[in-house]
Order: sequence, then structure tokens, then C-alpha cells
Amino acid sequence: MSITIPGHIVWFTGLSGAGKTTIARAVVDRLRVSGTRAELLDGDEVREHLSKGLGFSREDRDTNIARIGYVARLLARHGVVAVVSAISPYADARNAVRRQAAGRFVEVFVSTSVEECARRDVKGLYAKAFAREITQFTGVSDPYEAPPAAEIVVNTEGVAVDASIATVVDQLRTLGVFA
Amino acid sequence: MSITIPGHIVWFTGLSGAGKTTIARAVVDRLRVSGTRAELLDGDEVREHLSKGLGFSREDRDTNIARIGYVARLLARHGVVAVVSAISPYADARNAVRRQAAGRFVEVFVSTSVEECARRDVKGLYAKAFAREITQFTGVSDPYEAPPAAEIVVNTEGVAVDASIATVVDQLRTLGVFA
Repeated sequence: MSITIPGHIVWFTGLSGAGKTTIARAVVDRLRVSGTRAELLDGDEVREHLSKGLGFSREDRDTNIARIGYVARLLARHGVVAVVSAISPYADARNAVRRQAAGRFVEVFVSTSVEECARRDVKGLYAKAFAREITQFTGVSDPYEAPPAAEIVVNTEGVAVDASIATVVDQLRTLGVFA
Repeated sequence: MSITIPGHIVWFTGLSGAGKTTIARAVVDRLRVSGTRAELLDGDEVREHLSKGLGFSREDRDTNIARIGYVARLLARHGVVAVVSAISPYADARNAVRRQAAGRFVEVFVSTSVEECARRDVKGLYAKAFAREITQFTGVSDPYEAPPAAEIVVNTEGVAVDASIATVVDQLRTLGVFA
């Protein structure tokens, strides 16, 4: 038996290495355990499927975000909780997705600082960005517009990842994303 | 209450003006009436959302079809019947989607001839294609590879559209796409 719950878009935004995908993946697992249909749309993976050939100019980033938003809406329309993990640095692009989601959009700001992300540097990208081997790198050589009014904010600095996951899950339940 | 039925991809292929979208739209309506979650992915509309900037070379067409296939799989994974209407002229591209759909792919060949499509010319595109005002037009100046083994074949010539719709709906029921 499946429990019928209306879909939502849960949109994780934050810097590279902030912890978005780690938390988002765990959230998807928890939602599924609770009987909610959920799908992770990871920015890097979706870019590979839908936006090969696009770069990291503002226009190309916005196009990529709009495409992810289109797919997320299709899923949400059919009762799926579409959990998106994407840097999505521009507020306008995020807000465009929000407007089209008709009240079923939850923004999760993973507010880890650029200093902490650079310290972790899991993928080695910050070192390259500071050395200018990579250009247009969000937080270093490209802007990141923090959301002023995200429904959920988590800062992963000095906090165990399980605690961040629990915070998001609890708030999603409070917001009625799942029962 | 929603009836839980595993998802499928129902893929309409055929020339421009063959009747794909007309039949596909009606099929989606019938599926919904029967309590099945269904979504129409119309090739022109999806191209606008996911493939702006792509043209009509074989490579660009294949990329567009792969993107539609990716979205259709995501929907089907969550129990939705994704009904795709796209010229999709190349067999390899259609078969790649079929392989990735793990047995849940139903190909519907709308086999209306180019002569009949040109006679109807609903969008005025065939006139332009014959006048070479449009190039790379499938069936006129670009190839169409008819599927040799589609699960369902309908020819709309001399047949009322309602009869074509009924044929497809009946066969989808026989194939277990909906109950």
C-alpha cells in the first residue's frame, strides 16, 4: 500500500562542499522509509543528463536550474517529493522555480561558510579555484546569493551530519511535506 | 484513493502530423479516468523546456530524445505512465531509451504516410519543407527509421481518430500498462 501525500519540491542550495547532497540523500532515504515517494535530483547528475554543453555563465546556470525545476515540478505533480541538491547561486533562478511550484516549494539553505567548505575541499576544487585553475567557481570567483528567507537553514560547521539531517527531517514534517 | 500501478513509458513515434500527440493526449485522459497516474511529454514542449538551443542534426535530435527518456524514466520509476509524443526518427535513440526502461517500454508507431501527413499539413510545415524553406525535415529532407517491431502500430489513414485511440487504449490494457 502506498500512502498518498501531495508532492513537494525540497530545494537544497549552498556552496560546493557545504553538505547539500549528503543531507539531501539522507532525507530522501528517511522519506522513503516513512512511505513517501521521493527522488533525489542531484545538480551534477542532472547537468550530465539535461545540460551537457552548458557552462557556468549566469545564463547557463539559470538554464540548468530552470531545467531541474521543470523536472522537479513534473515529479511533484504526481505526488513525489523531489529533493534537489544544486548550488543554484542566483536568487532569481531559485525564486522562479518557487513561483512555478504553487506553494509546494521548500528552500533549504545549507549555510556552511566558504572558509569551511574550502577547508574540507572534498573534491579538491577550492584549491584549484584559489589557484585560478578553475574559473567561475561559486564563492571564490563567482557570486553566491544566500537566500534571505529560506524555510529551513542548516549550518554544518561544528555540527554532526546526523544532527543536520534530523533538523531538516523534523522541519519537513512540521511543514507538512510528509507525515 | 490512488491505485498503485507500476509505471511505464509509452512512446509514440511517427512523422510530424501523423497524429501522435492527438492520440497520446486522449490516451493520457483515458488512463487518468481509470485511476492511473499519467503524464504527457510532448516532444515540442519538452524541447522548449530542456533542449532550447539544440537543432535538428542527428546528434542534437538524439540528445533531445535521451533527455526526454531520462525524464520519462524518472516518472515511470514513481509509478507514472509517461506518455511521450516525439517524432524520434532514429531507431538507435529509441532503442537506447527502451533498454534503460527495463522492460517497461511500449513503442507506439503511428504509421501515417508522408503523403497523408503532407496532405493534412496542419502546421503548414510540409509546404515549407517541400519548398526547402525548412531543412532537415523528417520524411522530406531528413530520414525517418520506422520501428520494425513496435508493440503497437496504428495507421490513421481512413480511420476515425476515435478508433485509433481505442486501439491504443485496448492494447495498453492487454499489455498490462493499466488495469
